[in-house]
Amino acid sequence: MGNEPDILNNMLQELRRGTLVLSVLSQLAKAQYGYSLIQSLEEKGISIEANTLYPLLRRLEAQGLLESKWDTEETRPRKYYLLSPLGEDIYRRLCAEWKSMAQSVDRLIEG
Amino acid sequence: MGNEPDILNNMLQELRRGTLVLSVLSQLAKAQYGYSLIQSLEEKGISIEANTLYPLLRRLEAQGLLESKWDTEETRPRKYYLLSPLGEDIYRRLCAEWKSMAQSVDRLIEG
Repeated sequence: MGNEPDILNNMLQELRRGTLVLSVLSQLAKAQYGYSLIQSLEEKGISIEANTLYPLLRRLEAQGLLESKWDTEETRPRKYYLLSPLGEDIYRRLCAEWKSMAQSVDRLIEG
Repeated sequence: MGNEPDILNNMLQELRRGTLVLSVLSQLAKAQYGYSLIQSLEEKGISIEANTLYPLLRRLEAQGLLESKWDTEETRPRKYYLLSPLGEDIYRRLCAEWKSMAQSVDRLIEG
């Protein structure tokens, strides 16, 4: 038998991790940089740490789901990310899957 | 850039994986054996393969969330699984997290 708080925390983490890509993509129909994205997710109830988000943004860009561009007008240059056409397509499919899965899970836990 | 169908499939899989433990626990307030559990999840829209479910059931039992007992009355002995008191507690907490997370995600994708 394992340690109870660890077991629960791992399960909660796994539950949240599943929706992370969907959550991030949902906010990138308009260009955002890392910190503004963390804030806009936080305001909507999704916590994500910088050291989780930054590698995820780089991975999504490498996979072709995001495009990025540097804004060097500011004192501190910022890298802005935006959905690519492929990213928009994948985001739509993830949304469809999410809706159907969330309905099923709601039925399960109310049944 | 990766391969598009693989990227999408991995993301869909990650999305579903997050709710798997919650889905399985939701069906074990009454005792079920592996195959009956696959069927009851399937009827409610959640597909899970036997070679994913059986190791998961053994892991949840090892973690103390499930209790099991063999029914040897049948021609083919069957192992029945049921939530333990710890399992009931963890299930309730996962449900609460699910509801709050699902609301947040719904807000994100509709916003």
